[in-house]
Amino acid sequence: MPKGQITKARILHQAAELFNQQGYAGSSMSDVMAVTGLKKGGIYNHFKSKDELALAAFEYAIATMGQHHRAVLRQSPHAVERLFGILSVFGSFVDQPPVIGGCPLMNTAIEADDAHPALKTHAQQAMTNLRRLLCHIVNTGIAKGELQPAVDADVFATILISTVEGAIMMSKLYDDSTHLDRAITHLTTYINDQLRI
Amino acid sequence: MPKGQITKARILHQAAELFNQQGYAGSSMSDVMAVTGLKKGGIYNHFKSKDELALAAFEYAIATMGQHHRAVLRQSPHAVERLFGILSVFGSFVDQPPVIGGCPLMNTAIEADDAHPALKTHAQQAMTNLRRLLCHIVNTGIAKGELQPAVDADVFATILISTVEGAIMMSKLYDDSTHLDRAITHLTTYINDQLRI
Repeated sequence: MPKGQITKARILHQAAELFNQQGYAGSSMSDVMAVTGLKKGGIYNHFKSKDELALAAFEYAIATMGQHHRAVLRQSPHAVERLFGILSVFGSFVDQPPVIGGCPLMNTAIEADDAHPALKTHAQQAMTNLRRLLCHIVNTGIAKGELQPAVDADVFATILISTVEGAIMMSKLYDDSTHLDRAITHLTTYINDQLRI
Repeated sequence: MPKGQITKARILHQAAELFNQQGYAGSSMSDVMAVTGLKKGGIYNHFKSKDELALAAFEYAIATMGQHHRAVLRQSPHAVERLFGILSVFGSFVDQPPVIGGCPLMNTAIEADDAHPALKTHAQQAMTNLRRLLCHIVNTGIAKGELQPAVDADVFATILISTVEGAIMMSKLYDDSTHLDRAITHLTTYINDQLRI
């Protein structure tokens, strides 16, 4: 990889972690300079503005989540195991998050919903992609006879995402994974009792 | 009420709505001046710093939520009806929130967890008080024979809070109450099936 590309990738990684902890509004370009060890020109050489960097760093963080999802999905073709795999990725978001600072999708949604239309649009798209992934797993599982045919995939996606994201918020607030562990146990029981055939 | 007290109450209300929409880091004292129509001195006369105003505005927002909780709790002594009442307060957070901008507890938890220790401590306390309220409702309901004795009140509190808060995040992101409606239907069924005697 050419040196410029390596620098750009490093800025994205470090900016994604910074924004995921301090928020976009709470991070200045001076903060980005501090975490990357680069001068202003070294950053503006790759990103024209803080907003451009914010959108690119968000997409980087979401792509990192996506890599973790694909890794667990490769481990089993069975819908129930795949849902447990997705839960296990969320289960890592407090103690060993793919991007330091918790869930970049929730953090960005909360910050952007009333304040940053461009980031909000990107977060909507990432949320829609996550919901589609879950719907695809559920509907494929129904078609293969692994899940109850009466399950509404989109409703289930809402319940899974809302429960784990809310629990990540609670566990991050207390620095204690108890709440996320409870949410994952609850959803595991729900999947076994209500979805599994 | 003396004029100074009225001004202070108005600053708290308007600052709470501003912070709940734009975040603390995303709101400057100039923004506070703009929404209150006061000059700098008119605000600093009541609050020594933006941080002092941030903490006071958070407590104001949480107290507003608390008023809504107490109003629904006065309507019924039955544990199931009381839980549905708390759910109905959360159900208003997207279309008719007690404080414009969504849930101040979640918004503050997300912004403060890695970035603002004093606000984080206040948010922890508010979350603990909400959990205690739910535990009290559940344990009183068990003692009165209204709820299943095997219910773990603290685990239930985690599941209720995480599911509605995550769903508020999703519905605010899409400006569409569908996700919050689904979460409340899901929790209503859960309470009827798993908690109610």
